[in-house]
Amino acid sequence: MIAEIISIGDELLTGEKVNTNAQLICSELAGAGVGVQRIIACSDSEEAIVRQFEESLRRSELVLVTGGLGPTPDDRTKKSAQQLLKEELVLDREIYDKTLETCSKRGQTPSAFLRDNAMVIRGSVVVQNEAGLAPGMIIPCGERFQGHYLVLMPGVPEEMESMMRNSVVPFFSVKSGSIIKHSHIKTTGIGETGLAGIIGDIENRLPGGTSLAYLPHAAGVNLRVSSIGADEVSVERDNLEVVDAIAKAAKEFVYATTDISLEELIGRRLLSGRLRIATAESCTGGLIASRLTDISGSSRYFEQGFVVYSNASKERSLGVKAETLELHGAVSEEVAAEMARGCLMRAGVDIAISSTGIAGPDGGTKQKPVGMVCLGLARRKEGDRIEMITSTFYTQGDRRRNKIRFSEAALRMVWKELAHEFTNARSKV
Amino acid sequence: MIAEIISIGDELLTGEKVNTNAQLICSELAGAGVGVQRIIACSDSEEAIVRQFEESLRRSELVLVTGGLGPTPDDRTKKSAQQLLKEELVLDREIYDKTLETCSKRGQTPSAFLRDNAMVIRGSVVVQNEAGLAPGMIIPCGERFQGHYLVLMPGVPEEMESMMRNSVVPFFSVKSGSIIKHSHIKTTGIGETGLAGIIGDIENRLPGGTSLAYLPHAAGVNLRVSSIGADEVSVERDNLEVVDAIAKAAKEFVYATTDISLEELIGRRLLSGRLRIATAESCTGGLIASRLTDISGSSRYFEQGFVVYSNASKERSLGVKAETLELHGAVSEEVAAEMARGCLMRAGVDIAISSTGIAGPDGGTKQKPVGMVCLGLARRKEGDRIEMITSTFYTQGDRRRNKIRFSEAALRMVWKELAHEFTNARSKV
Repeated sequence: MIAEIISIGDELLTGEKVNTNAQLICSELAGAGVGVQRIIACSDSEEAIVRQFEESLRRSELVLVTGGLGPTPDDRTKKSAQQLLKEELVLDREIYDKTLETCSKRGQTPSAFLRDNAMVIRGSVVVQNEAGLAPGMIIPCGERFQGHYLVLMPGVPEEMESMMRNSVVPFFSVKSGSIIKHSHIKTTGIGETGLAGIIGDIENRLPGGTSLAYLPHAAGVNLRVSSIGADEVSVERDNLEVVDAIAKAAKEFVYATTDISLEELIGRRLLSGRLRIATAESCTGGLIASRLTDISGSSRYFEQGFVVYSNASKERSLGVKAETLELHGAVSEEVAAEMARGCLMRAGVDIAISSTGIAGPDGGTKQKPVGMVCLGLARRKEGDRIEMITSTFYTQGDRRRNKIRFSEAALRMVWKELAHEFTNARSKV
Repeated sequence: MIAEIISIGDELLTGEKVNTNAQLICSELAGAGVGVQRIIACSDSEEAIVRQFEESLRRSELVLVTGGLGPTPDDRTKKSAQQLLKEELVLDREIYDKTLETCSKRGQTPSAFLRDNAMVIRGSVVVQNEAGLAPGMIIPCGERFQGHYLVLMPGVPEEMESMMRNSVVPFFSVKSGSIIKHSHIKTTGIGETGLAGIIGDIENRLPGGTSLAYLPHAAGVNLRVSSIGADEVSVERDNLEVVDAIAKAAKEFVYATTDISLEELIGRRLLSGRLRIATAESCTGGLIASRLTDISGSSRYFEQGFVVYSNASKERSLGVKAETLELHGAVSEEVAAEMARGCLMRAGVDIAISSTGIAGPDGGTKQKPVGMVCLGLARRKEGDRIEMITSTFYTQGDRRRNKIRFSEAALRMVWKELAHEFTNARSKV
């Protein structure tokens, strides 16, 4: 099956937005054994959309469209599909009722747009939108483009992503008749190039039908191992072998071989060890706490966080000594240690993590450049003994990216600490 | 002048790479008054490239190509252009000598590829590569595509970027006659549908050459007003009139008519009012603090943040009363008020914002559903008087999205408070 992607939106043509949706769709399709031959970004105009749909449907069996699906007048994707395919729009009662209910829950007056929103192309498979209002559609294209499909999805990444994963990819996988197995390898603390260096040999000797994708994100890179074939047993076996080999080769950086976030893994470890955590942040400004509390149920192990931006607040809220600040500077392992210790004591928790660094773009010096962060980890041990680890980490990026990487380094430190303990515990047994 | 961009490379179609080059080219062209009508990513195969060149040159006056320009066998862009335009390749002596020199400076043996690298399409304007070896080309397309241009650039972002800025844009700016003006309208607290309801009349009566785009994001929606025409004065005037009309109609939701974030606007207001802020967060888990500190220089107005997740930490760190927690529950305006007051007092700041709510997916009840947040804002007024505002906000989404919208509602509250003050201050003058 050959696919083509059309991303609709003037914002892609004016340089305001990068087309990240196309990348996500491509990697989802690659995993399902569907090749993409073209990605096209086109304007919001109905004429341009209709012409593009026609051109793409002529040469590709599967045309996936994002954007222009909302209920506002500048959203012309549905109308364009209707015009090209000469199909009627019909009201999808289920979608309509669901969106009415959503509005009433939010206490909003349902607008006239809601009815337009629930109108779908006759004969299409309607795709539920789990993160927004506009429904997606999988449209079999009838006589004119026999056997071809037009898939309409919203342009909001979260909405599109869940539709791809939960509906579109499964729909076409069933059609192709092959068995697909995806595995995730989650890494932290290493970039794409570094990882490629470590697992290059494995990559060069992948079994037939198995492919490896690097999925870089702001804080690092994850891997997806996809195996496709007709026989379930060999598909499973090939996939598992590659995953095991990679996990072994890159042991130091692989924190999971399931699709779990680092925050979530830490949460599970804390829960199973009946440990409570607190954070003491300067340069990350609350991001470590925010990431830890992104996990549902985190109140069972996350006690509290201190964002101590000013030196005064470091002293006042965490008991960092004025002399330490003066002697070593706010960005130092000494201050990170006092922050973590103060946090551990005041919050009364078992483990505390601290960060103090220079997120930039200003404030760097030769000794302490932008992108440098000092981290401290305090652990309450038996007999009220406190164990302390500090470390310094360097990265390079803009302010936002530095904050993300600093927070990742901090979470990594917590993960290593807990992993270490768990390994020890296991080896004792 | 209408342009089209072709990005060549299989890595764009497998989901390995995001097409950031296209975004950069678009924004460079927008600034030069050149509109882009399509962006296409296509594979490395010569057949696909030739076909795409032909299709694009037929409909667009200017076709800009990145990628596949290196000297290795898998780089087929030059050969494809040559094939389509039936032009010879000739050696560019200047490029050849320069690359030989570069190699000798680097101590490398000049490879046989260097000669191929310096071969350019006859009749093209050769573009120097300041960051690499492969030269770019601006190719007038002759009889078959009369008056159209094909521009070839490398795919390495830095190489392409300097070519665009220093050679390509200046070359075509001189040729193009039209003026383009983009304006941004930033809103908060309203969705796409709601906004469309308010500004529908304005949208239906846009002056010719002016268009309006909705740019939704996780926390809300922004607008872009674009005007194009031959006359600078009328382009500017039409654009400004529409921006003013929208800003007036949606006054309650528009926080800026420049491309600025809400966090940044708040930062500027705090700075100009010499005010310091602190945060007290429960359900947002540090996200409000993290957003405020995403702004460079925020240490000049952000004092500190408290993430008080457990009830015990609400009492201990902010002095929330146990009775209040028991009587009204942690998620209540009463607790939000005590959190904000405690934060204001302990951090010694001028303004404090608090959040306590239910981010979900669990923990909701009928009275206090998932997606509900109580906010508190404490202000230190003259004579040590403290002014308090509280409010409750409802939304619906997954946990991450709820946290983002809760934090947006909190920032909105701060913005309104500061805007109000500034309006009062102005009206007093």
